[in-house]
Formats: sequence, C-alpha cells, structure tokens
Amino acid sequence: MKGNKKYYPADSLKSPRFCDVRTFMRLPNVKTTEDVDFAVIGIPFDTACSFRTGSRFGPAAIRDMSVTIRPYNINLGINAFDYLSGVDYGDIPVIPGYIEDTYEQIENELKPILDAGIISICLGGDHSITLGELRAIAKKYGPVALVHFDSHLDTIDSYFGKKYNHGTPFKRAWEEGLIDTSHSIQVGIRGNLYSPDDINDSVDLGFKVITANEVHKLGIEEVGRQIRERVGDKLAFFTFDIDFVDPAYAPGTGTIEVGGFTSYETLALIRETKGIQFIGFDIVEVLPAFDPNQITAFLAANVAFEFISMIALHKSKNASYLKR
Amino acid sequence: MKGNKKYYPADSLKSPRFCDVRTFMRLPNVKTTEDVDFAVIGIPFDTACSFRTGSRFGPAAIRDMSVTIRPYNINLGINAFDYLSGVDYGDIPVIPGYIEDTYEQIENELKPILDAGIISICLGGDHSITLGELRAIAKKYGPVALVHFDSHLDTIDSYFGKKYNHGTPFKRAWEEGLIDTSHSIQVGIRGNLYSPDDINDSVDLGFKVITANEVHKLGIEEVGRQIRERVGDKLAFFTFDIDFVDPAYAPGTGTIEVGGFTSYETLALIRETKGIQFIGFDIVEVLPAFDPNQITAFLAANVAFEFISMIALHKSKNASYLKR
Amino acid sequence: MKGNKKYYPADSLKSPRFCDVRTFMRLPNVKTTEDVDFAVIGIPFDTACSFRTGSRFGPAAIRDMSVTIRPYNINLGINAFDYLSGVDYGDIPVIPGYIEDTYEQIENELKPILDAGIISICLGGDHSITLGELRAIAKKYGPVALVHFDSHLDTIDSYFGKKYNHGTPFKRAWEEGLIDTSHSIQVGIRGNLYSPDDINDSVDLGFKVITANEVHKLGIEEVGRQIRERVGDKLAFFTFDIDFVDPAYAPGTGTIEVGGFTSYETLALIRETKGIQFIGFDIVEVLPAFDPNQITAFLAANVAFEFISMIALHKSKNASYLKR
Amino acid sequence: MKGNKKYYPADSLKSPRFCDVRTFMRLPNVKTTEDVDFAVIGIPFDTACSFRTGSRFGPAAIRDMSVTIRPYNINLGINAFDYLSGVDYGDIPVIPGYIEDTYEQIENELKPILDAGIISICLGGDHSITLGELRAIAKKYGPVALVHFDSHLDTIDSYFGKKYNHGTPFKRAWEEGLIDTSHSIQVGIRGNLYSPDDINDSVDLGFKVITANEVHKLGIEEVGRQIRERVGDKLAFFTFDIDFVDPAYAPGTGTIEVGGFTSYETLALIRETKGIQFIGFDIVEVLPAFDPNQITAFLAANVAFEFISMIALHKSKNASYLKR
Amino acid sequence: MKGNKKYYPADSLKSPRFCDVRTFMRLPNVKTTEDVDFAVIGIPFDTACSFRTGSRFGPAAIRDMSVTIRPYNINLGINAFDYLSGVDYGDIPVIPGYIEDTYEQIENELKPILDAGIISICLGGDHSITLGELRAIAKKYGPVALVHFDSHLDTIDSYFGKKYNHGTPFKRAWEEGLIDTSHSIQVGIRGNLYSPDDINDSVDLGFKVITANEVHKLGIEEVGRQIRERVGDKLAFFTFDIDFVDPAYAPGTGTIEVGGFTSYETLALIRETKGIQFIGFDIVEVLPAFDPNQITAFLAANVAFEFISMIALHKSKNASYLKR
Amino acid sequence: MKGNKKYYPADSLKSPRFCDVRTFMRLPNVKTTEDVDFAVIGIPFDTACSFRTGSRFGPAAIRDMSVTIRPYNINLGINAFDYLSGVDYGDIPVIPGYIEDTYEQIENELKPILDAGIISICLGGDHSITLGELRAIAKKYGPVALVHFDSHLDTIDSYFGKKYNHGTPFKRAWEEGLIDTSHSIQVGIRGNLYSPDDINDSVDLGFKVITANEVHKLGIEEVGRQIRERVGDKLAFFTFDIDFVDPAYAPGTGTIEVGGFTSYETLALIRETKGIQFIGFDIVEVLPAFDPNQITAFLAANVAFEFISMIALHKSKNASYLKR
Repeated sequence: MKGNKKYYPADSLKSPRFCDVRTFMRLPNVKTTEDVDFAVIGIPFDTACSFRTGSRFGPAAIRDMSVTIRPYNINLGINAFDYLSGVDYGDIPVIPGYIEDTYEQIENELKPILDAGIISICLGGDHSITLGELRAIAKKYGPVALVHFDSHLDTIDSYFGKKYNHGTPFKRAWEEGLIDTSHSIQVGIRGNLYSPDDINDSVDLGFKVITANEVHKLGIEEVGRQIRERVGDKLAFFTFDIDFVDPAYAPGTGTIEVGGFTSYETLALIRETKGIQFIGFDIVEVLPAFDPNQITAFLAANVAFEFISMIALHKSKNASYLKR
Repeated sequence: MKGNKKYYPADSLKSPRFCDVRTFMRLPNVKTTEDVDFAVIGIPFDTACSFRTGSRFGPAAIRDMSVTIRPYNINLGINAFDYLSGVDYGDIPVIPGYIEDTYEQIENELKPILDAGIISICLGGDHSITLGELRAIAKKYGPVALVHFDSHLDTIDSYFGKKYNHGTPFKRAWEEGLIDTSHSIQVGIRGNLYSPDDINDSVDLGFKVITANEVHKLGIEEVGRQIRERVGDKLAFFTFDIDFVDPAYAPGTGTIEVGGFTSYETLALIRETKGIQFIGFDIVEVLPAFDPNQITAFLAANVAFEFISMIALHKSKNASYLKR
Repeated sequence: MKGNKKYYPADSLKSPRFCDVRTFMRLPNVKTTEDVDFAVIGIPFDTACSFRTGSRFGPAAIRDMSVTIRPYNINLGINAFDYLSGVDYGDIPVIPGYIEDTYEQIENELKPILDAGIISICLGGDHSITLGELRAIAKKYGPVALVHFDSHLDTIDSYFGKKYNHGTPFKRAWEEGLIDTSHSIQVGIRGNLYSPDDINDSVDLGFKVITANEVHKLGIEEVGRQIRERVGDKLAFFTFDIDFVDPAYAPGTGTIEVGGFTSYETLALIRETKGIQFIGFDIVEVLPAFDPNQITAFLAANVAFEFISMIALHKSKNASYLKR
Repeated sequence: MKGNKKYYPADSLKSPRFCDVRTFMRLPNVKTTEDVDFAVIGIPFDTACSFRTGSRFGPAAIRDMSVTIRPYNINLGINAFDYLSGVDYGDIPVIPGYIEDTYEQIENELKPILDAGIISICLGGDHSITLGELRAIAKKYGPVALVHFDSHLDTIDSYFGKKYNHGTPFKRAWEEGLIDTSHSIQVGIRGNLYSPDDINDSVDLGFKVITANEVHKLGIEEVGRQIRERVGDKLAFFTFDIDFVDPAYAPGTGTIEVGGFTSYETLALIRETKGIQFIGFDIVEVLPAFDPNQITAFLAANVAFEFISMIALHKSKNASYLKR
Repeated sequence: MKGNKKYYPADSLKSPRFCDVRTFMRLPNVKTTEDVDFAVIGIPFDTACSFRTGSRFGPAAIRDMSVTIRPYNINLGINAFDYLSGVDYGDIPVIPGYIEDTYEQIENELKPILDAGIISICLGGDHSITLGELRAIAKKYGPVALVHFDSHLDTIDSYFGKKYNHGTPFKRAWEEGLIDTSHSIQVGIRGNLYSPDDINDSVDLGFKVITANEVHKLGIEEVGRQIRERVGDKLAFFTFDIDFVDPAYAPGTGTIEVGGFTSYETLALIRETKGIQFIGFDIVEVLPAFDPNQITAFLAANVAFEFISMIALHKSKNASYLKR
Repeated sequence: MKGNKKYYPADSLKSPRFCDVRTFMRLPNVKTTEDVDFAVIGIPFDTACSFRTGSRFGPAAIRDMSVTIRPYNINLGINAFDYLSGVDYGDIPVIPGYIEDTYEQIENELKPILDAGIISICLGGDHSITLGELRAIAKKYGPVALVHFDSHLDTIDSYFGKKYNHGTPFKRAWEEGLIDTSHSIQVGIRGNLYSPDDINDSVDLGFKVITANEVHKLGIEEVGRQIRERVGDKLAFFTFDIDFVDPAYAPGTGTIEVGGFTSYETLALIRETKGIQFIGFDIVEVLPAFDPNQITAFLAANVAFEFISMIALHKSKNASYLKR
C-alpha cells in the first residue's frame, strides 16, 4: 500500500527487481486514464534519424534498466508515490517508415491521456517524435514554453529537401505555433555546425540558446537560474535528448558529440528546473545497440525518475497542479 | 477474434512487433488461471550454477526476442491459437541466494496453475529449477516420464559437498520419486566427464542415455523413434537445456560444450516427440550476457513455440488432453 | 597489371590488405561507366524495415571485410579479373525516412549504369531497395526472372496499412510487371508465418517456392537443378537476403530465423546457379550492429565475390554476354 | 633483485607484460605465509547479489588487467617493493550457492594469513564477502574501524526475508560486534533509496555517512580530512565497492548508480586515507560480463595498487606496523 | 563552391553522411600534392606495441566516425574550408612485422607531401610511427619543437633489449637530432612508472614535463600558457596519444591509464595551443577492437578536426604560413 | 590422487572451476622438466600476422576457458591423467615486434623441454611461431611429418618482400629441411587464392593437399584414413590453425574463411589421427578480441584436450612412446 495511491511500483525488498515482465520502474502496465497522475509511454520510432538508427528499441531498454530505481529521491527529498499514482501505459503503435502518419498516431493516442489531466513522460525513439507530442500538447494547452536539453539545435529547415526529420522538429513546432519561443531555451548545444548561422537561426526563431561551453563556464546553478527566469510561470514541456550527456556517460545514442556533461551535472541541472510548471516530458535518442553496458539506458531511466519526482514535488507544493 | 480463444498474441501486421511491454510472443501478461490452456512462466533463478552466472536474465531475454515469432507453425502445419488460449503469467518470485527456499516458491506458485489443468512452460534460470517444477508436477500427476535434452547428465550426487546445484536435479528427482526413470531418456550428452562412471550412474538410476555422438550417428528420425518408444503413453515432462545446441548456435549459456547440434537438427528432433503426452515443459540456462546477437534467446523462444504448437497439435487430435 | 583490364583490386601481397580507404575488394572507387563490366554499389537505406534497423551501415561493413578476399575463385576455377573490369561505384544518395523518394533515387542512379551495359551488384540496405532496382532493371530489360534466396517471402500485401515496406517488395514488383514470376523462384523460406496462406499467396502470384525444409531434404544439387530449370534461359536478377543463412553463420541481420543454412551450403547453392544469365544482383539486410565478429559482413562479401566470379565465368563462355 | 624482498613482480622491460599465467601485478602465485607482507586473495563469490550476477569472475578480470601496472607509484612517491614482499595467494574455495558455508570458508582460509601478520587484499566477488573477512579480522584484531566507499549503504536488515545478502553485510557486522561504528564512515552514498530512513538506519548503527552529493560539494581534501578524523588511530579495514565510481568509469558492476566519481577523484580520495593504520582491504563487485573494454577491471587493479603503495608508505614511516 | 578551394567535404545536408566510401570528414580520397593545404594520411602500423595490438585498424575507425563532423568549428569560430583545401590521402603502405622498414616507407611517402608544403595529419597506428614522421619532418624543416600529449613519456631507452618500440620513439628522436627538446613539452603524464627516474630521464633529454596531476591542479588555461611559452615561435609538431584522455572517454586504446582527462578538457587544452606554428600533427594508438561504441574513434576524429581548424585559423592570421 | 602421476588438474567437484589463477585445465603452473610427460606452453606472439592482430592474448583466453574441461574423454574412452603427468609451463618470453629474435627465443626455450622427452603443446600466437617450434623439434628428432589443419596453405614465399610472416612458415620449414613433406599433409584449405598456382606451389614442395571441398565430399572417415596413410609411422607434428573451423564456430581469429567445418567435424577428424606417433602439437591464431562469447577459445582448449587424450592413448598402447 502506498497511502491511497492506486498505481505504484512493486517492492524490490519483497520480490527481486529482475522478476516479471519489464515495465518502467516496475509500475503496473495498464492502459487506463482512471486514477492516474502520470503515464510513462513509449514511442518506438526511429525512421526520421540521419545517422545511426535503432532508437525504436529505446523504450524497451529504458524499461529494462529502470527496475533498479528505488522510489525515494535522495536529492529532492521526496517519494513520488506518496503523492502520485503512475502507470506504464505501454507504447504508441507507430508506423515504421512513415513519419507523418506516425505523427498522427502520436497525436491521437496522447489526446485521451492529456484530456484526463495526466502528465505524459514519453520515451523515444528519435527526436522527431517531439513534434507529434507538441501537437497534442498545444491542442490541449496552447503554445508552451520549451525546455530543450540537447547537443544539437534541431531547428534545421530541411534535410535532403525534406521537412520532417529528427533535425527539424523545433523549426516545425515554431512554424505551427506549438511553442512560445520567447519563453523557450535550448541548453547544451555543441558539436560543430554546418555554418555559424545555425545558432543564429535558432535565435531568430526566438529561442534563447546556452551552448555547452557556456554551461561549462557559467556553472550548473547559474544556468538553472537562467532557465527558470526564461520560462517564468508559463506552462512548459521538457524535451531531453540523451546526447546532451557526454558519450562517456551515454554512448548509446545516434549522433554523439564530445565535450558534454557528466551524469552528476546532468541530473543536477535537471533538478534546477524544479520550480517550473511542466505539463509534459520526453527523453529521446537512446540507442541500445551502442549501449552494451546499459549505462545509457539506466541514465535515461534516472532522468525520467527525476521528472516524476519533480512532478510530485510540484504537486506537494501547488494545490492547483494536476488537479483533475 | 481467433475463434473463441480468450488470450492470443497481438497482430504484428497491425502494430509493430517491437511495440509495447515485452511479453512472450506478445501474449497478454495476466496472472490468471481462468480460460487459459498454457502459461509461459519465468523462473529467473541462477544461484545454483557452477560456472557462469546470469541466467536470471534468461526469461527477459527470451521474451524480448519472442516478439518476432508468427503464430502459424510451418513445420507442424498448425496455428496454435486456433486451439489454445495462452498467457504470459510473469515470473515466479524466486529468492536469490537461497536454493531450497526457491524450490518452495516454485512449488507453491505452480500449484494453482497445475490444479487448473494448465500446461506450464517455464523459462529458466539454471537447471536446478526443474527440481522445483517436478515436485509440483509429481504432486499433481505422480511420477512422470522425463524427456531431457542436454549436453550434461545433471545426475551428479553433489558438488562441494552440497546436494542442490544445477548439476544434481535429476539425482534428487529420482531419490524423491518424482520421475519414472524407466520411461525417461537423456539425449545429447557430450562434453567430457569427471569419470567414465558418470553415464553409468545415470543408467543405474534407470535412465536411457543417448549421447551426442549417437545422435550424430543414428540420425534425427531414429532418435525420435527411440524417444517415443521409451516414453510410450506415460505422462511426460520435457526439460530442454539450451546447451544441447552447439555453441555456434547458442553461445549464450553457462557451460558450453562443443560438438552439439544445429538449430535445424534441434527443432526437428523436438518435433519428433510430437506424439507424446506432455504435461509440462521448461527451457533453461539461457544466459544473455554471453548472447550479444540474441541468437540464443531467439532459438529458446522458438523451442517454446514448438512446445506450444505441439500442445495444440496434441489437443487437436486427443479429445481428453487438456480437458478442464 | 591484369591483362588489359582497366579496373581491378590492389595486390595484397604488395600493400597490406588493411591499408587505404575501404572499397569493395580494394577495387578503385570511381564513379564512371567507361571501361567497366561490373559495379558494386551501396544502397544504405533501412527506413522500410519492420524490426531491427541499422542496415544502412551494411555497405560499409561489407566493404570493410571484403578486403581480405583474394581474386582467384577456388571453387569456380576462375580469376574474375582475367575477364572483367570492375569498380566500387560508391553509394546511391538515399533519402532516409522516405521510401518512395528513395525508390526514385535508386532508379535514376542505376539508369546510366545499366544503359552502359554494366552489371550492378547492389549492397543493401533493407530488402525494400530491390523494388527500386527492379524498376530500373525492367525499364532496360523488361520483366526478368527472379532468383530469390531468403527465409521470408516478402510478398505480404501491406504492413500497418502501408504498401511499401521490406516485407512487400515482390508483391509490388509483380503488380508493376517488373518480374516474370513464371520463371521466378523463392528458396529457403522458413520461420513461422502469419497464416498458412502466406506461401499460397506467393504461389498465386506465380512463384515457385522451395522451403528451407525442402532444401534440407532435397539437397543442394537437386535444388540447384530446379532453380536452373525454373529460370531457363530468361534474363534473371538474383536477390540474396542474408537471413537465408542460419543465424549462427549470419547473426548480423534484422529478422533472424533459425533452421537455416551453413556458409558452405549457401555458397554451394549459389554456385549451382552458375549457368543462368544474370543481369543484376543484390545482397541485403546485413546489419553490422549485431555482427560484432564481422562474420556476417564477411559472408556477404563472399556472396558478392561468387556473383562476380559467376559473371566472369559466364562471360568466358558466352561471347554475347556483357558485350557493350 | 628488489633489495632483500623475496616476492615481487616480474620485470616488464625484460619479459612482455602479457606473458605467463595471469597473477596480480605479475607477482608469484604461491600459497605461503612465509616472508610475505601482503597477499592478494580472490574471493570469487556472487551468490548473494540482488541484481546482476557474474562477479565471481571479478578476481580473474582484475588479475588480467593488473599486469600493466608498473611498480613506482608516481602519486605517493614510493616503490612498494622496496619495502614489501607480496604474493598472489590464489582464490578462496568458495561454495557457490551457499552463503553461510562460504563465510566459514573465508574465515578459515584467512585465519593463517592474518595470524602470520600478513595484510590481506581481497578481490570480490559481491559485497557479501566482506562479512566473512570481517569475522576473521575481528577474531584477530577485535572490532575495527570501517572505511567504506560505496554508492550503497549495505546496512539493509533483510531482503526477501533473508539476513545474508550483498545489501546487508554491515548490519550483520554491527550486530556481531565486528566493527566499531563510532570510528567508521560510509562515503559516496547515492542512488535513490527505499525510504528516507535508509540513511538514518546507518546513522543509528553509529556510522558517519557522507553522501555523494556531499563529496561533490565538500571536495576531495575536506572529505579526506573527515575520514582521517573519524578513524583516528584505530586499526581500520577499507572496503571498496567499485560502484562508488561513476558508471562511465566503471560500467562493469552489478548495480550501477549515476552521479558518481571520476577515476581521478576516486584514487585521489583513496590516497587521502594514507595516514590510517589499515590491517585489511577489499575491492568488490567487479563484473567482467559488463566490462567489454576492461576499464573497470583496470581501475580496480589500480585501487589495489594504491592500497599496496599505502601499506608500503605506512611501513616506511611506522616501525611497528607489519612487524612480524 | 567553397570559395575557390579545390578539395572540401561532401555536404551532409544534401547526401546522407553515412553514404559512400568512408574518407576522413567525407573529403575526396585523392593521392595528389596539387592544390592541397593539408592531407590526412593513415599509417596503419601496430607492430611496435607492448601490450594490446590492433591499432592498425585505427585509421579506418577514425574515418568511419569522422563523417558526422560538420565543418564550422563552434569553438574557434572558423570554417576551415573557407581557408584550406584538404584531402584524404589514403594510407602509407606499411610493412607489418618490420619496424625499421616501415620507418623508411613513412619517410619516403611523406617526403613529396612535405616538399609540396602540405601539412600532414597522420592517423596511427601505434606511437612508434612518430619517429618515422619526425625523420621526414626534420629533413625538411630541421629539428622541431615537440608538443606531446600522452599519459606515457615514450622516452624509455629499450624494451626487451630492442631500440625500436612504441615506448621509445622520443629517446630515438632526441638521439637523431630530430627534435629541439629545449622547446618541447610532454603533457598529461601519469600511470605508474618503472622507477622514479623515468621522468628524470625525460627531463635530462631536455623536455619539460607536466604530469596529469599538475594539469589537474594548474588548470587548462595555465597549462596552455606554459605550452605556448615553451614552444615560443619555433616550428612545432603535435603528437597526440589518445591515452592522454581518460579510459571512460577513450577506452579504445592499447595501454589505458586511469586519472586522465575528459573530452571537454582535452579539446580545450588542444585549442590553447592555437598560436603555435605547427607544421605537422599525428593522432596515435586508437584501437577499435576495444571501442565497441566508437566513442574513442569519434573523439580522435574531433582531435584531428581541431588540428585542421587551427591550421585554418593560423593561416587566416599569418600570411606567410602555408604559402606554397 | 591420480595413481602415481605427479601433476594433474584440480578437482572441480571439490573447488569450483572458476577458482584460482587460470592455468590450462587447472594443471599446476610449474616450470619444470622433472616428472612431466606433456607441457602446455603459451607463445603469445602476433607480430607476423597480415590482417587482424591480437592473438598474443590467445594463450590467456584458452587457459580461461579450459578450466571447464573434465578429464575423462568420452570419445576416446580415456582419462589422460591415468597415464600422464602434465603441467602448464607458462609462456615463452617472446619479443614483440621482432620475428627472428622471437624464433630464437622459442627454439632456446623448447630445447630443455624436448631434451627431457616431454611432448610440447604450444598455444599461439600467430602461425609464424610454428617455424620456431619446428626448428627445435627438428634439432631433436630430425625432419618430421607435418599434419596441418588450416584454411590457408601458409606456403607463400614472401609478403611485402619479407620472408618471415604468418603466411610463409611452411615454405621456410621446407627450405630449412625441418619437415619431410613426402609424409606431410595440409587439410581444409579453402578461401580464395592469389592465383591457381598457390596450391600447386604447396604440391611442388611435396605436400599432399586436401581442400575443404574435398573434405566435405570425402567425409571425415576417409580423410582420416588418407592422413594416417600419408604420415605412416613417421614421427609427426600436428599444427592446428583455428581458422580450419568455420567462423560460426570459431569467430575469434585473424583471417576467417567461410565454408569451414563444425566443431563436431573438427574434433572427429582430429581423433581420426589417433594412431599417429606425434611428438609435438600446436594450436594457433586464436584472437580473443573477436571472441566475445569465448566459444573460439573453448573450442581451442578442447582441441588441446584431444591432443592430450591422444598422447595418453598412444602411450597406453605403445610401450616405447614417451619413455624417458
């Protein structure tokens, strides 16, 4: 029993954590919108990526490693399941090979979840999926602030003459009015660029951009402050590309970039966003075929766990948040 | 759909096979004994093994790769789900580090399933688990004939002065009267031995033993005939150790032995047992940490699928079988 | 020097085979149609696959391992470069994420090569690419006989409501009149099926189907005879899916199927087709991320080498073949 | 020649370091207590672990990678073999599958070594083994101060109703009076917890706990000072769980936790303990099956080397230490 | 395009970066000295190494991963191809098994390149190759300043009684007068030593040595200042051993040493050398067999890219540099 | 106790087989020639290979996996240790990078062993080492018959203008009069060739050659008969290159060739040579970096075990054999 919460993880002091069908954090796998505060949802789609494919197996890998996570968050001082009921909702039935049809599937499947006031935590899949999520989110909540951790801007206009690709979602989201770039921020940008205009292009769309070098120089706390300041009290969506992290800590992804962040820095910076009123999250680009030790999938699971803990913390302090 | 069968696999022409939480063959994961003909059950226990540990992750690996199996068995000419309702029952909550306590768990958990007339297909775990299964089986059905495919006899008396170990289960089963060795057979024995007495010890317990060399020489059909002849019309249990197969085809196991069988030979020989009245099955010793390409787990999933198809075939021809 | 042949491999007795930029068999990498008899061409496209992605890295992996192949074919008794000039033509610039656009690219890029009377040997990529190749081939040569080695039929009508996918190319090719199924043959079919109708569907399209079990029973020579008989003196295209081979020998592919063939059987059966007048070849579904030992890529390179040797053998005996 | 020291490593400038049977640092493998100052001893036991098994292969992996370590410690400014004679004592014959019997073996095997005044450096194996070591140590020396580097507290009372497990050794050690918790310290604790009481439980047993976050904030030098202050001049035992280190630096372990330490920080903090009078050491939870690059095993070997160098340094300054 | 530069990378917004034969950064693979400012050259030689062999496959691995690098250097604020024309020159035909003959090959092959005023960026191969390069460099430019990033000094006199080995090149270079040690510097030295004299030996040859510990303490900027001060305005050669980096970031190398640098620190320190007048570079000891995630090869490719960007930056500011 | 035999393996029913420093089959690691019938000796040398390096780690890998072999040979019906005393002699101190110096080391180190009438079983290392062994053997016994299992002939005259290489040892052995080719045989030859003359060259040296295709066609028994007939009652040396086996069964080697043999066929064919009077054996080209599942190393260990069993069998029947 977890107070009066309906759905919560199995107890790994009673049955071993490696037992049973793998769900996120050993949560019940039920496709319901009743009595649920948050839902973890897989979007196993990798058709839109430009280098290494295979992130369609990301959700399964994250679930596999999430079973060792224990419920009390030592850093935020909270057991999320004292405040929240959560489920593993399974996966959205994507259509491999077909980007735009998949966007429709994502939008349709998320609608009843969002309509029930449930916070979605989606596990990718490549970064193209976020456009589908944002379409569903914006229909429910209007344009949202975007908190975007990534080594790439993903605001390229097109690749090979095509508009939809994992390098373009935020250009499209801006065009479609799904995000309020004046309160949005892109953090951790590095790697080299096609041209010096790449960052300017993002800035021209209205984003604030903090490069990896700037993060290294400003420090975690100051960057946290700037993120909170940028978003203000807007409803926000957090999209986390695992290649934000350095390849030493997250080798299992499609387009690695050196000069990134440690797992300690990454989670600390995520926690700096804890005051923000998030209404959705995703974690993308986990690619198990290049993650033989499973450290990338485990880190991604921990990122999702920080998200869940932040939802609980926010709810514990804000009566109106997640009130259904 | 699927006639009036209640539980059957998701359709991979409709939703991609890599979608959703991983269950065996995409069967529903429900812990019920109602309207079920067979149940796939994980027993993730590897405490009793003498060389490489890690087979506690076997059930998860087999589930992962089983999702690509399609329902119509081209070799037996049957779609099992025209005749059977089946579930993924999840795992038995073993107690890692404690062999005898785990045997109790296995026995207790299998009882309601067997009592409901359900055929159990257990996924190991190391070969010690079969003793727990046989205790449950024998309580329900009395001593059964054992069809044992393996490269090892597993009838050693003790290791390091201890009675319970993955090398000893069939010595114990014989002592406890769980099996009728006069109708039992061990097939595929090879590897080298501690002494020439090892095979004699098995024979002294009453087993018929067919070594790998004999299989290579007699051929699949003749060995099949001898197995059927040996078992006759006794109720039987099929225990399949994946190291029966050659390491080229099944590298992911704890104690590989060269000179084994191809996947074609293995499945053909399994199918030769199709006339036998089996009331339980297991597949043991799949060790994912040594199976980077997942070919071992996939082969194990196919073995389970042959078992399911044989159950269906038997039921299609024997009115009394599986009548609840 | 290789007689008067213009393009031939570097000599590995002179410079080590691991030296220099990796091209197929150390052939020159030149994008020309002058003085060329055959061209090896990569088609790194994996958008259309239904399970594991990653075969876009297939051409690179095959090139990497092809450098150890020596020019004299011990089985066919010929050094291809005594008769042929060949190049590594590089890759076709596919459009990841866009199947139909990629078909256009394939067709456009192959046209000048075919028009120059060059034999194309394409390296996939997933099996969807063959449709693009066949469109180009049929435009030049009319409907061709298809020799198709695979564990799957790839004549499914649609997946997830979509017509273009790596499971559907030969249904489409038949619809578009690109192949003469009355002279076509599918060999090695196994794995389980969605329904017993799957094989009938292929037969209804006009194909002759020889299952893996039939191959195991008839033997290599008899199957070879049936293939040659089926094709007769029609112009033919050979499409080779690496999953024809057993996963023990070719683990690095997207949809493995147990019960397949050894490398010895595979190459022997390919050589049985040596009398046929082929005007194109491909090798598809090599997936390096699941091929840590590179044995799959090496086997694929050897398949391509058998193709090259067969072209030379055919040319050595048929004055009219490959006459430009 | 190494002065008058009897046992010291082979010289890798004379015979290549990859030559000969693998012993720790190429020390002689002799099971003697004569003329020995320290002994490296494997305890290949992994029965008591709660997630990934396989650390029974830890000692072999550490030996394999230790052969590249050269004798002069650049950081401590000492060649240990100017002061010490050391051997690779081989492994303790554990009883796989039987925790309490193995504790007896450990205790019995260590007794003659400790009685000879030899410093033991044990290589695990899972963390349960430390209880066996502490029983032997306490019999010789009475309750000792514990310096415990780990991401987990390992003071849980029981798992699955069982008292002996790799999560419980220090609760048991406290119950059995083997350690003086008033001088003991646990450093690096992180990961999430079953409940906020977990740390309190350790504190209630008398331990001082410094979490990973505190280490990140206090810095290596200050934490070093606190450790030395805590232990004072008590005889101490150093137990090092490799998951203290971040998974980027030590992926090969059973229960990884993100947010850990770099190899530089880890070794620097170990060296901060150099004033303490240690009478035993262990390094546990190295799991080679998840260490394909062998970086974890190499780091563990370096930890052992720091231990050896600290023994030498201590001996060089304290006439009474290690006096037999 | 690209101003009037003749050779520059393919555009990955037009054709996918995974297309075509793998060359460094998708540069043209042409063996010419006309219209070329810099040439990337593989030296796939690993005969001279003392522990893990396999770096002969280093150049191929670096090329494979270099294809994702985009041309605009975000840190140096320059697109090298606005200033430079560059090629992938292929590999030098080494003679495996024969060190001294290979030195001759290196020297002979580099001569025409250097004579044409081209900057060479060589990809190893083990560190022995640098002696061959320095012989060619010194013949053209006289003794040069050496900037040497490594965890090892490589100034050992001999191994196993032999003078040529990957641990001895800089002792030989000093003996042969190829380097001006009074302006040379070794940075990042760590690992343990054969004796305390090892560093003194380097100092006695005239080198300035900054150990890893000193780098950790002084910080990147101060070390950068000391390097620039040491070299002054001498012509310089930069030799970069990938084991300078910590194994977490660069596991794929022959002789890993813990306590190293992050990818961020490494690239930042390289950029600190940007004022120096380099006339050659190499990157050695990348060993793909221990780099399953390819993060080492990718980091090495980025190091080469920093070198290229620094050449461009230097040229943009110094009219006389690279004037042919 | 093993009768009056002095050196025999540890008993794995008493102490677990994964315990202690790894020696071949858990034999004592003693460098003695007293009371020894056979010695297993590592020759960790890979300088002379033409493609993948790394076989210097072969002996360690074979030792690691040999510990699971039990002493009674089920196929030959003998426990070797009833007849033989055997040791793991450790490794010969090779000189990496220097082929001819290493030959001297091999010859010098083997001399006292051979002089003591001990049968040597050497573990490579690349195939070049056999020349060193044959020099020592011939000095003691005169020219011997060679039984050579391999996919390559290794009778090339030179590579890159050099005489000593792993492709040339048997040309050299013939030149130096170390082998009696009129009684020698090369079995399993396949892969493609530089020219049709390659086989003729071997035949011209006097060898009988049986290609892989011939073995596949003649069958194991007939080939066995031809080998025995060829050798007759000459003293013989057995050299086994692991690439004789198909890559599916032995992926971990430097130059794989498809179309090889299964582990069953391989061991059966080795046993066919049991009547021959061998005075030495080696097993070469095991390359652990490409053997992640360790199946190659395990197969190699089994080959050595067959050799040992054959020595025992021969001794049991021939009073004069091995009489010291």
